[in-house]
Amino acid sequence: MSVAFTSVRRVEFADTDMAGLIHFTTFYRMMESVEHEFLRSLGTSVVQRNESGQMVGWPRTAAECEFHAPAYFEDELEVTVQVASVGRSSLVLGYEFHRGEMRIAHGRMKTVCCRVDESDGLSSVEIPTELKSQLDELVEPE
Amino acid sequence: MSVAFTSVRRVEFADTDMAGLIHFTTFYRMMESVEHEFLRSLGTSVVQRNESGQMVGWPRTAAECEFHAPAYFEDELEVTVQVASVGRSSLVLGYEFHRGEMRIAHGRMKTVCCRVDESDGLSSVEIPTELKSQLDELVEPE
Amino acid sequence: MSVAFTSVRRVEFADTDMAGLIHFTTFYRMMESVEHEFLRSLGTSVVQRNESGQMVGWPRTAAECEFHAPAYFEDELEVTVQVASVGRSSLVLGYEFHRGEMRIAHGRMKTVCCRVDESDGLSSVEIPTELKSQLDELVEPE
Amino acid sequence: MSVAFTSVRRVEFADTDMAGLIHFTTFYRMMESVEHEFLRSLGTSVVQRNESGQMVGWPRTAAECEFHAPAYFEDELEVTVQVASVGRSSLVLGYEFHRGEMRIAHGRMKTVCCRVDESDGLSSVEIPTELKSQLDELVEPE
Repeated sequence: MSVAFTSVRRVEFADTDMAGLIHFTTFYRMMESVEHEFLRSLGTSVVQRNESGQMVGWPRTAAECEFHAPAYFEDELEVTVQVASVGRSSLVLGYEFHRGEMRIAHGRMKTVCCRVDESDGLSSVEIPTELKSQLDELVEPE
Repeated sequence: MSVAFTSVRRVEFADTDMAGLIHFTTFYRMMESVEHEFLRSLGTSVVQRNESGQMVGWPRTAAECEFHAPAYFEDELEVTVQVASVGRSSLVLGYEFHRGEMRIAHGRMKTVCCRVDESDGLSSVEIPTELKSQLDELVEPE
Repeated sequence: MSVAFTSVRRVEFADTDMAGLIHFTTFYRMMESVEHEFLRSLGTSVVQRNESGQMVGWPRTAAECEFHAPAYFEDELEVTVQVASVGRSSLVLGYEFHRGEMRIAHGRMKTVCCRVDESDGLSSVEIPTELKSQLDELVEPE
Repeated sequence: MSVAFTSVRRVEFADTDMAGLIHFTTFYRMMESVEHEFLRSLGTSVVQRNESGQMVGWPRTAAECEFHAPAYFEDELEVTVQVASVGRSSLVLGYEFHRGEMRIAHGRMKTVCCRVDESDGLSSVEIPTELKSQLDELVEPE
């Protein structure tokens, strides 16, 4: 597994539920937060404007996560990102969550680079050239 | 597809993001909320106490969702539940989201009936007999 | 106290925290959700477009809540709305939360009718005439 | 104003709404998150066990916030904490949010040190002696 990016997220009180554990939706928020930090590390942002001033974003088409061990309040989770595949407009990133040596969860999200138009809705566009070559270099070898 | 349960959830303002659409984590919250309403409809709750006063809950081991079309603020989404499989302690439910005729998303979550112990953590237990037979009757034929 | 609107919200599992109670931020989400349902009941929506196609919304300038008794998972809370004051562009609504006879919380939020412009940011505008007269009729007498 | 603690929080994509701004409930989550980081900096945690193994926590009795200027996705907000008052079991903290020189919001939350008992509910207890003297030293002079 070739790791493209690593960051740390802490489990907040609001992320817990009455079972005393992290609520499962927190992992999706954390994956997104680390994804955006990863894009910033590549010199871009998940939200851009094109030359016509339209928003270009990355809506998701799929997101999945498996939960292996519970995480608790104030845990610091190490989140690693792998670039699973890069298409013309689509991007699949994989995520691993660890607390120390303990594997807590792993997930995967597919996003598509899209123009967001208030009247027309979403339409896929090509990933900007420079970002695409950066991502291509980081793709995990099969 | 045999539908075990149906309910409706409205997209709230806090569920939207700056792209003007429903934020994807909302679907997981909605799946959970409808799952719990489904369990209430079967006469039980997702959180119970056993004879020893310990909490018995249903932590998730996996959750996935695919997003087919955007949903917007104030949309009313019809959510249907299918019972995909019932094990000794595990339960897999499938979910479909529609706005009118338009299919918005579909997902699936696997949960395991567990005793939640403050000192020992989670340990799987058998699904209570009555609930198991109710669920078995609702399993989608393959 | 003259009640302008009443609705019910259920405490979801994701709304609880490890103390076994509703997390306090849930009350703000519920106040907002009931506020929007109240506006729908008056024939409008919290998000509108003006003739120039610009978004007209109601950003908040203040929100407060006091918590009197804990609420728990699956509780059904009755939320009542009072119109505390209506200005040229501002609106103050009060909220009461009850579970049966038990008073759980009360809060208050001040919002300002604004044009949301992507380049210029927020600028306050007059509350639309028809809505203003509906709200004026509902103002709680001092 | 004597500042007891300072930290930074970034506005995440999930914290925004369709008006393109930070959703107001985010400020309450951030106040809580910084409050807990402040308690960790004093060598304690917001969730403790007493000698009998019961949870001792800090439920809120009131929380308020005023919003002066909008914050946006990826903004880094500096959050400062002031100790407004310390009672036998209650604690009032004030919060200021800035983006650079721009004041974004300020808030205040009152919490009460409580034993959380599954059968009896919440009952207030004295703030632990050492923590109380640390907090007393940080109280803002009137």
